[in-house]
Order: sequence, then C-alpha cells, then structure tokens
Amino acid sequence: MTPIDFRTDPSRYRHWRLDCNGPIATLTLDVDPAGGLYPGTELKLNSYDLGVDIELADAVQRLRFEHPEVHAVVIGSGKDNVFCAGANIGALAKSTHGDKVNFCKFTNETRLAIEDASEHSGQRYLAAVSGAAAGGGYELAASCDWITLIDDRRSSVSLPELPLLAVLPGTGGLTRLTDKRKVRRDRADLFCTTEEGVRGQRALDWRLVDEIAPPSSWDERIAERAAALAATSDRPADAKGVVLPPLEREIGDSAVTYPNLRVALDRAKRRAEITVYGPDTPPKAAADVHNAAFWPLALARELDDAILHLRANEPELGIIVFRSEGDPGAVAAIDTLLDECADDWFVREIRLYWKRVLKRIDMTSRSLFALIEPGNCFVGFLAELVFAADRALMFAGSRAGDNRPEATLSLSALNFGAFPMGNGLSRLATRFLGEPASLERASEAIAERLSAEDAERLGLVTAAYDEVDWDDEVRLMLEERASFSPDGLTGLEANLRFAGPETMETRILGRLTAWQNWIFQRPNAVGDGGALKSYGTGKRPHFDPRRV
Amino acid sequence: MTPIDFRTDPSRYRHWRLDCNGPIATLTLDVDPAGGLYPGTELKLNSYDLGVDIELADAVQRLRFEHPEVHAVVIGSGKDNVFCAGANIGALAKSTHGDKVNFCKFTNETRLAIEDASEHSGQRYLAAVSGAAAGGGYELAASCDWITLIDDRRSSVSLPELPLLAVLPGTGGLTRLTDKRKVRRDRADLFCTTEEGVRGQRALDWRLVDEIAPPSSWDERIAERAAALAATSDRPADAKGVVLPPLEREIGDSAVTYPNLRVALDRAKRRAEITVYGPDTPPKAAADVHNAAFWPLALARELDDAILHLRANEPELGIIVFRSEGDPGAVAAIDTLLDECADDWFVREIRLYWKRVLKRIDMTSRSLFALIEPGNCFVGFLAELVFAADRALMFAGSRAGDNRPEATLSLSALNFGAFPMGNGLSRLATRFLGEPASLERASEAIAERLSAEDAERLGLVTAAYDEVDWDDEVRLMLEERASFSPDGLTGLEANLRFAGPETMETRILGRLTAWQNWIFQRPNAVGDGGALKSYGTGKRPHFDPRRV
Repeated sequence: MTPIDFRTDPSRYRHWRLDCNGPIATLTLDVDPAGGLYPGTELKLNSYDLGVDIELADAVQRLRFEHPEVHAVVIGSGKDNVFCAGANIGALAKSTHGDKVNFCKFTNETRLAIEDASEHSGQRYLAAVSGAAAGGGYELAASCDWITLIDDRRSSVSLPELPLLAVLPGTGGLTRLTDKRKVRRDRADLFCTTEEGVRGQRALDWRLVDEIAPPSSWDERIAERAAALAATSDRPADAKGVVLPPLEREIGDSAVTYPNLRVALDRAKRRAEITVYGPDTPPKAAADVHNAAFWPLALARELDDAILHLRANEPELGIIVFRSEGDPGAVAAIDTLLDECADDWFVREIRLYWKRVLKRIDMTSRSLFALIEPGNCFVGFLAELVFAADRALMFAGSRAGDNRPEATLSLSALNFGAFPMGNGLSRLATRFLGEPASLERASEAIAERLSAEDAERLGLVTAAYDEVDWDDEVRLMLEERASFSPDGLTGLEANLRFAGPETMETRILGRLTAWQNWIFQRPNAVGDGGALKSYGTGKRPHFDPRRV
Repeated sequence: MTPIDFRTDPSRYRHWRLDCNGPIATLTLDVDPAGGLYPGTELKLNSYDLGVDIELADAVQRLRFEHPEVHAVVIGSGKDNVFCAGANIGALAKSTHGDKVNFCKFTNETRLAIEDASEHSGQRYLAAVSGAAAGGGYELAASCDWITLIDDRRSSVSLPELPLLAVLPGTGGLTRLTDKRKVRRDRADLFCTTEEGVRGQRALDWRLVDEIAPPSSWDERIAERAAALAATSDRPADAKGVVLPPLEREIGDSAVTYPNLRVALDRAKRRAEITVYGPDTPPKAAADVHNAAFWPLALARELDDAILHLRANEPELGIIVFRSEGDPGAVAAIDTLLDECADDWFVREIRLYWKRVLKRIDMTSRSLFALIEPGNCFVGFLAELVFAADRALMFAGSRAGDNRPEATLSLSALNFGAFPMGNGLSRLATRFLGEPASLERASEAIAERLSAEDAERLGLVTAAYDEVDWDDEVRLMLEERASFSPDGLTGLEANLRFAGPETMETRILGRLTAWQNWIFQRPNAVGDGGALKSYGTGKRPHFDPRRV
C-alpha cells in the first residue's frame, strides 16, 4: 500500500483554497468528491477524510510561518447550502480501528493547532457558517474563536453522530460544548441527539454559535467580524514571511532519512530508532534565523513528519527510541538564541512549533525511550525529547576505543516553561509534581554539562549504566517492552504521561478520545448490524440493548 | 440467575472481619476461597470478586454511621505472606464486558468512599501491608491515607496487571500513582511493568508507600501510626452510633419496592421509573433524627440499593426516570433541618451519604430523566435528582380532574454546594458554567415554589409542557432515547455530565475507566489467545502487534 504522505503545499491542494489579502486570509473548503484517500468513497457535501485534513493542517501551519501579515483567518465553504458535513462516513466505515483512531487524533491535533494559532500566535479564526455544519463540520467551527451563522431558515449546526451513526463526535465536539462554549448540559444532550440540528436564534440562545446574521448583510458582517478579530492580533504588520520548502525525505526498507534526522526501522524488534543530528554552525543573531533552513525549524518539520509517518504507516513498530548525535555546544548556542529572541515573531513560531511537535510525541501511542550516549547533543530544548520519553537511560562514562566525548545532558531555561505539555505544565514540572525541591535543584543546574551520575542524582533520567551493563540492560528493557500487550501499553501510557492539571486539550485527547475509541470497536457501531455499517443502506442498525 | 444483592451486614460477612476497639477499628481481609460469586472460581491469596467488595463497602458505610467513636481504621490481612492479590482473575475472565465494567465501577466507588470517609468524616484509613499487595491489593492500600509496608525482604507492592494480564489496574491505581502519590512518571512506568513489584526502601524512595517498618516493631508501629491518624479526627468521642437495620425490599416481576421508593420496571420500553415518596411528618430537631428511620437516611439507603440493583441486574433498562410524590412542605422542613444541623455528626453523615448516592447516579451509565408533575415534592436536597438528570421535564399547570397541587419545584441553600459532584462543583454551578448570572438568579429564588414557567425561565428544567402536550412529548422523548445506541449514549453522557474542573475522582472515573473499558474488549486481553484467557493455562498470550 502507498504510505500516507503528510507533506503537501497549496499548489497541490485539492480541497481547500487559501487566499491571503492583507491582514485577512480566507480558507475555503471545497472538497473534490473524487479526491478521497480510499478508492470508491465519494466525498459528498464537503465531507472530509484524512487527506482533506492534511491540507487544512498544512494551511494552518503555513499561515503562521509564511504569512506574518495575516491577523485573522476566515474559514468558509465553497459550496452552496453546506458548510461541511463532517467526516466522511464511507471512509470511516472502511477504515480499520487503528486508522479511525489515528484519523481522529490527527484531526484533533489540527483543531488544537487552530486554537494555538489564535491564543499564542495572534492569528484569529472566524467560522463563517453558511449552510449546514454537521458533525465534524460543526466541530471545525467550534475550534475557531468565533462562529457566525447565517440566519436563512435552513443553515444549521448539528452533532448528529450519535443518532445517525452510534458513535461520538470524535474531534472534540463534546468537550468544546461543555468546556469551551459552556452549553447547559440538558441543552447539550438535546443538541447531540437531534439529527437535524439547531438553527438561527435558538443556536445563539443555546450558546452554540456566537452570532447570527441575515443573508442580506452576510458579506459585510463577516468582513466586519474578521476585521475586529484581526485588530486584536499582536502579529507584525510588515514582517516578511518565510516559505516552507518541500521536505526532503527518503523512504527505504529499513530507514526513513531526512537531512537532520534518521529513522531506523527494525521490524523484527518492533521498534523505530530516531537519531537527531545536531547543527553544524549556529547562526549568531535572530536576523540570521529567518529562513526555513534554520536548524530547529528544519528539525521540527522533519521530526513532525517522521512521527506522523510512523503513526500512520508503521503501526507494528511499538517502540520509538530517541537518540542524538552532535555538538552540545552548537545546540546550546541555538537554545540561547531561541531564549533571547523569544519576542521575534519568527522565533516565537519556531518555539510554538517545537511545543506542538513535542505534544504530538506525547500523544503518540508508542512506547518512548531516550538513550543518552557518548557523542549525544541533548541540550535545552532538544533535551525535551528525553523528558517526553517514558524512560530515559544514560550511558555512564565512555566506551573503550570510542573517542567521542562522554555522555552529558544539559538543561536550559527553556526546559522550565517554554514547551508546556497539554496539561499546561513543563515536562520537568510534571515529572517532579511530588518533589518540588527536585524541580528547584534541576533549575540550579541549568547550563551545567551533567554526567550520568549527576543526571541520575537530579532525577532527570531513569537509570544510568556503564559500559559493562549498557548493551544488555538496554536490550533487555526494549525486548521486554516489545513483549507486552500493545493495547495495554497504549492505555498505560495515556494515563501515566499526563499527571497534574487537566485542560480542555487533555480532556479531549484523554477522556473523549478514550470513550470514542471504546465505542469505535463496539458491535453497536462497527458490527455487521451496527450503525456505521448500516448507514446509507436503508437498513436500521441492530443494537444490543445492554448498557455497559 | 439470582440477582446480585448488595445488602449485607457484619454477621453475614464471609471475607472481612470488623473489630472496633475504642477509637481504632481493624478491618481484616481474610477471603474465604470457596465464597466466590461465580461457581468454580477459587478466591485464592486474598483475591476478591464483587462479593468481597460488597462486604468492604458495607463495612466502610457502617463504620461511619454505627461507630462515631472510631477515628481510624486499620486495613490488614488475615493471611500469612499476602496482603491482597487483587481482583480474582478467574472471576474477571468469566464475566461479561458489562460485568467487568460494573465491577470496576463499584470497587472504584468503594475506594473513593474510603477517601471520602477520611476527608469529610474524620475517619482515617491506614493500610498495614504485610505480605504482597498486588494489583487491586495495592490499589486498596493506595486509597488509604497512609501505607505502612513491612520490611521483611519479601513483602512487596505491585501493579502487575499489564505484564500479567494485558489490562490496566482498574481501580484507580494509575491515577493515584500520578495524582495522589505523585510518583515520577518513569518510575511509575517501571513499577507498572514489573510483575514482581517493589519492596522495602525502594518502595519508600519511589513514593509507593509512606513508611517501612521491620517485623520486630511491626505491631507497635501500626498501633502508633493508627493512634496518630486517629488524633487528627474531628469525630465525637462520646456519641452513640445508629445501627443500620436490614433494608426492606421486595423484588417482583414488574417492580422493586421499598418503603420510601418504588422502581417500576418496563422491559418493553427499556426503562425503570423510580418514584420517591415524601416523608410523613418531619422531626422537629436534630435529636429526633438520630435513628435509621429518619426519612432522608432511609431514602438514601433505598435509592443507593435501587441504583446498584439496576446496574447489576437490569442491564437492558437503559433509561431511569425519576419522579416524586408527597408534601413539598414536609421535604422543605427536613431540608432546613439538614441545613441547620450540619454540625451534628449524624446529620453530617446523612448529607455526605446523600452526596455519594447522587454521585453514584451521576456515574450510572443509563439515560436519566426527571419528570416534575403535579403532586411532586422535589425540594432542596431532593431536587438534586432533577439536576442530576440528563433532561428534566416539568408539567405546567394541573391536570383536569386531578386534585393534586400544581407542579412546583423549590430550591434551598443545599443546592448550592452541599452535594458537590465529582468535579467539586454543585450540580447547579456545573449547569450554569457558561451563565454565572443564572446561578445568581437561581440563588435568589431559594424557598420559592417555582411554577413550570418560573423553572423554565430560570433554566432549571429542560422544557415545560401543559396538559395538551405532556403525554405525547414525554412519550416521544423516551421512545426516541430507547432507540439510540446504548454504547453511544454511555459515551455521550460520560462526557456531557462532567463539565468544568477535573479532580482525581473524575480522572479515575472518566479517563482511566474509559481506557480500561477500551482494553477490556480488545482481543489482546479478552480474545481466545488474549492474556486474560491465557492466564493460568501455561500458554503465552498472542498479541496483535499493531499499536492503536
């Protein structure tokens, strides 16, 4: 099977049009019905599959880097009478359980990226809902800052997943109803069980949309609202965007290689080993960094793509091992630059992107190991990979006959808040929830080159082994991991990785997703007589009446 | 099949011994291997099934009402070398998916009741762990205020569910590791994947237990620790406990009846209709209420039992309808008494119990409707049933030829914080998260007899219908609900009921439970080659390696 490719650019879009006009951009959904990922599925009524969402994610990303001048984005429909009918049911019904879960995870990450762009990057989103916004269509609107609904007696918002398909809205809809829009629970219950949805004034009264506008003044209202949203932005007006060039990637049998990253694929051992290569010579100032080849940006793009590739195309590789090779001093210099130039709009974007890539890793249901070996360059922002891992092992001392420097690990100010997890805390703060003194001690060690002994004493790594034990300990640990139930590990990791506070994001990705995954494999949804299979056949689904 | 009965008392315990000795009580687990609920399963090594946990829940409950003088409870084992081996695997493997989920839900509620007894009722719990505390055994210990582990080179704590059985610790273990005990995540990961567990000093260093004690001073250490915990209690020293008599209940084909409650069972329509009968004459003062027949306590016990009965024995009744009949004035008088005598230890217990019964209802995966009709007595604390419902419908005006008073609904101070949900907020505060002004308006209406029009205007009910529409609207709504996927509704309700903040409790019952339910139906756990089926057979489980 052709691997799913997450790389695209506006010249290749089949389903979205991106038009930038000064501070306002318009993203128009106009799905090509024949452009579905799965042969034989027709993407009617602006319904989407993963391919459509890959384009949306790309557009959201490019707007941030390539268009500093865009301060507000209007999402609208290119079709009459329909804004977006949500996820395509045929595609969903044909896909495996794993594909369904991965699809929802990616679409959720894209919706959260829209909210991140607004909150942290000053790029506001307006949903201009003209026509029906059903299911994922309404969820897309709900990820925007503001929803304007046309009041034409036909256009409606709805979450018909439960009555139509016996599944849940899978892209954060329920959580955004209760937590973002704070809809009263009995109204939310009515809304989610009413196939035809809610229109006009009632949609406004129930807090489902933020305003309604008659067709006669629709265009002006959208323009005014977009201008008002744009006026709240802190993005620069006169900066020059940086075009993100196509990502270089080579997929081989046993490895996927990028300029700054290599993913070795060991199918027999069921693991992928990602080695990050450090930068050559660091730039000196922020002015030098305004290009797409700047190492942390290039690396973030490659790492993001590698993770998405592994999720979608290598489901049997249950373990991801992170390694690094390079000059710690060069990474430290870039880390300092990312810290000192935080106010530069482009550096801000790189930091925010690195945050999102790390969150993507947190949400990846593979066991994550970090190996900190001689010659590594885990420093500051790059060391977040160590703290994102389920376990981190460090080589103590050096190897006989190996002239690479002894393994060290270094912290920087960026490890203490620049890249919050979904729970709003840094990885180190989450790690040391029960030992605030350890967090303090770690912060006192900023910039030191920590030996394995230091790192273990500070609680930064799980264990340290010297040359005598390293190979065996690492091998045994990885072999044991590969022997466990993949499902059990998914559930275990989803619980242990996210201690501490909950946010809308953790609720969407933890609570809602877990319930959705549960329902996605229940016979009432996916069985032969289940609703997903029956949809469109004219047959009524058959339900086992027992409540669980 | 004989219905599962949740009623018991110490004279009938087969698995626990309860000994009260002044301020310290001892709860000793000594499971009768032949006393399992499922024929043919042997409850070896102090492993438990639902029957064992029903006794524990009863003991925890009685300690609160019958033993005001008990200020600390020591949970220990009556067997050598084992504290508790957790849930019995044979029983788990034989039970249906629904039974597994219900079992975990009940055991979770019991663990949370232990924590509630400590936090709100001043009855502290000490886990005296001598011998292995494995899986649910460690989870039981983790629900206590303090864990003392004997340091005898053998005794250990462990969560071996994942490596042994390919499932998650299902009774809050993962959440208590991360949130209550704040164990570092890589250590938690190691702990949960190490079958043999952790002993002695390492268990202490890793925050898995609170102290270790050598066998030579074990008894003294436990006695000292129990005394120290008891010293922090605010329970009275000289009050007289109230014995909870056996619950009167009659199970018929079409109804379950209690003195203050009737559950009509309509199997064709897949619903249970619970009618609460109001009190006769209210007592005048707190002194009069110190008996088990006091209406709110008697009602709470009956309602709790009814909910548990429906969960365990009537899985096909997907809808619960709440009604009430009686004198609103009499309920209001009792409500006032519960408010004014909040400092009385027994009234405190009744209020706390009512809180727990309401939470049990919140966590019941059935669709909840409240019907507020002429002759009802939904006032104050009883009106919480209305706010616990997914939808509440109110009859406007009166029925022709019916001389009962027009339906009214009344709020009291108790609706604004006395019975917090798992999220820590009152049901009204949760309801009005998006409209704080509505919460304020509702509080201004305390004590008023609100008509259907008033209640609808204040946002307290979903809809009001007069005589012309009532029967049809209610019928259609309930019929429609019964037509939806039971699984979809379970997931929908689990998400919409709990807006706002998260707590350890909501994380256990929302996030962890959802993942556990997911894993509980995956072939890797329950399939023919899955770990639950393979356990004890000598065969290795076969896992589908694909990560989801």
